[in-house]
Amino acid sequence: MKLSEGVEWGVHCAALLALAPPGVAVRREFMAAHYGLPDAYLGKNLQALARAGILHSVPGPHGGYRLARPASRITMLDVVTALEGSASVFTCQEIRQHGSGALPPAECVRPCTVDAVMKQAENAWRSTLRSVTVAELADRLPADVRKRNERLLGG
Amino acid sequence: MKLSEGVEWGVHCAALLALAPPGVAVRREFMAAHYGLPDAYLGKNLQALARAGILHSVPGPHGGYRLARPASRITMLDVVTALEGSASVFTCQEIRQHGSGALPPAECVRPCTVDAVMKQAENAWRSTLRSVTVAELADRLPADVRKRNERLLGG
Repeated sequence: MKLSEGVEWGVHCAALLALAPPGVAVRREFMAAHYGLPDAYLGKNLQALARAGILHSVPGPHGGYRLARPASRITMLDVVTALEGSASVFTCQEIRQHGSGALPPAECVRPCTVDAVMKQAENAWRSTLRSVTVAELADRLPADVRKRNERLLGG
Repeated sequence: MKLSEGVEWGVHCAALLALAPPGVAVRREFMAAHYGLPDAYLGKNLQALARAGILHSVPGPHGGYRLARPASRITMLDVVTALEGSASVFTCQEIRQHGSGALPPAECVRPCTVDAVMKQAENAWRSTLRSVTVAELADRLPADVRKRNERLLGG
């Protein structure tokens, strides 16, 4: 059970874009070089973030990507979900209703406890990721790094 | 990012074994039939649980599996970790230290915030799974189902 490496890339790029001046789009090539990432593969992740409405893709010679809404309204969960999907990590196959020990439907009105605990655990995971925004990630950078990045991005 | 179907099987089988009389081993074939699971594939999961010290494999004609310690001391996290490993779902590649925007080592003494939040989220997930024991799962079965299973297991 693994998150793809694109998650780290996507979160860092979103936090970087949070430091760009309003309306300024940042080229994919710039972000790839900034973090030493494979350009084309990063592109796929940025496109996924754009499809999810987190980034806005700006065409043309001064094009690139910018955040599609304020960084304070983009959570880490938004980015992770855009890149990994929103499917549960645990899929209950209701084995309690199968085989020679199958429970009758009347005993299965309430969700299976195993499934309920798995869902509760996943909700705890999602809640933590939802509690941190891209704006906060950018704010938590060391002040000199944040200023350097703002300068690099034309701020 | 998905947990294997063996997780559901392993948790249910452990909860079933919690209802066996003390010292009684339950055959793999019985558990496979009870939940309608593929016998050989279930065997691989049960062996993994035995290797992790959760089940005890009893050889011989009356052999099978029993819990290796009291059900009240086996958590859902124990079972999940035995079957899925204990590796983090997120692997930080420290991209903040790569590329043209690389931070100098002095700026990277503290863990990367992205990694820290990811770890916090995963800890929340693990905590929830750690909070529920196999004994509690067995206890939460409907009373008549619990009694039926106890009877089937020779109790």
